[in-house]
Amino acid sequence: MGGGALAAPQPGDGASGQRTMPPSWRTPGGEFSNYGQPSPDGPIRWVSTEPGAPGTGVAWTPLHELEGTLVPNGLHFERHHAGIPALDSQAWHLVVEGRVTRPSTLDLATLLRMPRHSRQAFIECAGNSSALWRPEPVQAPVGWLHGLVSCSEWTGVSLRQVLDRVGVAASARWLIAEGLDAAGMTVSLPLDSLPAHSMIALYQNGEPLRAAHGFPARLMLPGLEGVVQVKWLGRLTLSDRPAMSRFDTVAYTDLQADGVSHRFTRTLGVKSLITSPFVGQRLPCGAQELSGLAWSGAGAITRVDITVDGGRRWWPARLDGAARDRAFTRFRATWPRGVASEPAVIASRAVDSAGRVQPRRREMLRRRGGDPRYHYNAVTALSVSADGGVAHGYLDE
Amino acid sequence: MGGGALAAPQPGDGASGQRTMPPSWRTPGGEFSNYGQPSPDGPIRWVSTEPGAPGTGVAWTPLHELEGTLVPNGLHFERHHAGIPALDSQAWHLVVEGRVTRPSTLDLATLLRMPRHSRQAFIECAGNSSALWRPEPVQAPVGWLHGLVSCSEWTGVSLRQVLDRVGVAASARWLIAEGLDAAGMTVSLPLDSLPAHSMIALYQNGEPLRAAHGFPARLMLPGLEGVVQVKWLGRLTLSDRPAMSRFDTVAYTDLQADGVSHRFTRTLGVKSLITSPFVGQRLPCGAQELSGLAWSGAGAITRVDITVDGGRRWWPARLDGAARDRAFTRFRATWPRGVASEPAVIASRAVDSAGRVQPRRREMLRRRGGDPRYHYNAVTALSVSADGGVAHGYLDE
Repeated sequence: MGGGALAAPQPGDGASGQRTMPPSWRTPGGEFSNYGQPSPDGPIRWVSTEPGAPGTGVAWTPLHELEGTLVPNGLHFERHHAGIPALDSQAWHLVVEGRVTRPSTLDLATLLRMPRHSRQAFIECAGNSSALWRPEPVQAPVGWLHGLVSCSEWTGVSLRQVLDRVGVAASARWLIAEGLDAAGMTVSLPLDSLPAHSMIALYQNGEPLRAAHGFPARLMLPGLEGVVQVKWLGRLTLSDRPAMSRFDTVAYTDLQADGVSHRFTRTLGVKSLITSPFVGQRLPCGAQELSGLAWSGAGAITRVDITVDGGRRWWPARLDGAARDRAFTRFRATWPRGVASEPAVIASRAVDSAGRVQPRRREMLRRRGGDPRYHYNAVTALSVSADGGVAHGYLDE
Repeated sequence: MGGGALAAPQPGDGASGQRTMPPSWRTPGGEFSNYGQPSPDGPIRWVSTEPGAPGTGVAWTPLHELEGTLVPNGLHFERHHAGIPALDSQAWHLVVEGRVTRPSTLDLATLLRMPRHSRQAFIECAGNSSALWRPEPVQAPVGWLHGLVSCSEWTGVSLRQVLDRVGVAASARWLIAEGLDAAGMTVSLPLDSLPAHSMIALYQNGEPLRAAHGFPARLMLPGLEGVVQVKWLGRLTLSDRPAMSRFDTVAYTDLQADGVSHRFTRTLGVKSLITSPFVGQRLPCGAQELSGLAWSGAGAITRVDITVDGGRRWWPARLDGAARDRAFTRFRATWPRGVASEPAVIASRAVDSAGRVQPRRREMLRRRGGDPRYHYNAVTALSVSADGGVAHGYLDE
């Protein structure tokens, strides 16, 4: 071994004649595994649960430690309302009933025999970024503030095809989806608002759904808020009215400044975040590569603008890769920060293919006011001190 | 809890008035984790190592159990020649030397400050599918015959930018890359043949490279054979000649039928495989959804044709998603197999954007003959018996 390596330095190639052999060339390395694991010091999720309810809470995706446009399944955010059920795929079945011609019970083998398609799509919890409703900016890295969003490649059976199979009655107006978790997850969706490419997902990033992500089957409705992406899907009911479950009413509604509460606000806004740099870093002098993520519930990201002076001037970031509908877009920009730097306030602002522009925070506060909890998508800013310290800030203060 | 669920069945919706509560609604489910794990009975890799050398061998990706176009990092195939080195990212550095203006040592912090880009790309071991050189078809699922190929989203620093930074001398013709593993991995690449978008990869599918995949840095040269995607990259030498390492000469060369041995045959062919159904399955009666993967080292997949009669008639499969250069394309086709089925021989044949057509096996054998070990990319076939049994077969026998 190593015979080839000894041949590597060529005469006259400038390599030192006497090469030092790397220590790692002297000892065979570690063994194979059936299922590989990340580095022990690699990124992990921050888990936050309710007291006494270890399965109720959230696990945040460490967006500030990740790159590209996909999130590994083990780091995909999780939001569970009553833990992760352990379902038996042999016993599992999906009931489709209500205002249908042929009420049906579909087992997994039946679903697996139907045509499938694959699609990259993000999921974002409606409660993501909710710390930013607070008057003072919380000092935490972007993943611990905004990490209830992730993007995967999903594969499954067209929801439309399943509905066609059972025959939706003309009087049906709503689709009510139930999960098999102990939260009794139940959400209602207007039938005429189901996104294109909606599916009953069976695979995530290539492998069968994991228990934590809805095994054996979940809804994947591209662009809609996370709660409707029902995990551990057990029942679809076609109805002439919504279920008005607690997930339709008490939670996931938006009280506006004018006192009106908006319900069934399922389609997510256009949003972007700078993931690098992040809060707590100290930047070295000189040019800095900025990077971040943008997404929209209504289409593709067509443009992301960057400011480093608190929003006075903006310039377009580079979008890395082709525009993808309802999936993460990675943006990048070079910030020609000088050696003798002044304090700066940096932020990103996204525009989507529906023409929607990510709002500024004060604009969102003016409109929402009331008791805001959900659907925060305002521009997020970072302040960078003269010595390179990075802190969370609000653009409009 | 469950209050919402009780509201779900609406009068007149056809749901039974007395609903049975799913058992999983009665007990809170499992807890969160910092890094999620797959199902214990989910797909795993088959590991094959050399006697007495547990780090030398391969781990096969279970392609027949996966879907979509990406492979999770834990299931990405591995081929190690002397195990997985445990490198310290603080001590790690990349030496760039030889025929360059500014010989350099780049540490990880320096690389992380350079502009990055992301790109989906497959890696295939040149030895993939080598069991198909045997005269009799081996009866094993596609992952255990062809699973030395996987596709990921990679993020890293442009190789071109690193070379520009050190200043490549006009006399340099070859890039020699060395890994830090105990195999003394050393490969030589003509400088003028480096693919577009070549990078020093730092992230795979969103997270930092794992040890098994080259942490902290590896080459990612889209479309070239796996051995040149040097993991645990330690040194780049610019030279006027190749290293002629054992990985350039003894291995990864192609002896042709005419006695000539082709060296540096790095660019991979156009290839496709049916992943569903797979060997060992027994198909039920009626229509069957076929699915598979196609890729090319020279561009995007533009077409995949399907046959079910042993190659007499072919029809085009559906390509799922946009064409992607040097990445997996998922193809799908509905096989209108009758209830009273006859024996069938099914196969796929891919065409790429460079106009290359996946060859038939006899054509490849005629050309290669000699001592074939590498670069098998011929059409792969399955025979399906009248009772639905699926076996591996050769199209041309």
